Amino acid sequence: MLKPLLLNSKKNKLKFAVTVTLKKDVLDPQGKVVQQTLRNMGMITLKNLRQGKYFEVDVNEDNEETAKNKVDEMCKKLLVNLIIEDFTISKL
Amino acid sequence: MLKPLLLNSKKNKLKFAVTVTLKKDVLDPQGKVVQQTLRNMGMITLKNLRQGKYFEVDVNEDNEETAKNKVDEMCKKLLVNLIIEDFTISKL
Repeated sequence: MLKPLLLNSKKNKLKFAVTVTLKKDVLDPQGKVVQQTLRNMGMITLKNLRQGKYFEVDVNEDNEETAKNKVDEMCKKLLVNLIIEDFTISKL
Repeated sequence: MLKPLLLNSKKNKLKFAVTVTLKKDVLDPQGKVVQQTLRNMGMITLKNLRQGKYFEVDVNEDNEETAKNKVDEMCKKLLVNLIIEDFTISKL
């Protein structure tokens, strides 16, 4: 079966990495638990640990700028809670 | 109160970012749900999305190589399930 022409017209798959971190002043109880566990395991030089989220996103766009804007929109609409989290997008 | 000398001798705080991703052939149902949700929200150019974990680790070591080895040890002992996950460590 032939694929529709619309799908074939966009062949470029751009890959982005999205890193979501809690803002500096937001408590991170989950990270603290991991940190304490590691210290209890003998890692006494561990000073601090904070946990975040990570996404790898493939977008079917020809233009890198458009693709990055799409990913930015995804972050703002669903992936990131902008009240308590920051995010960075980088091209892979 | 004076801090113990031992703590003062290590002033260098090195920061590392740890990214944990599922191996290529491991299914990622959570990522698939996020992907489907984004597509339902109208992001039709989204091709694929995979979710991972992210840690920011501060280590009290003077030597970067030693610090990185410490973080590597943390990953292998607790943070990463090496059977199904890969990880990368980068200096921040």
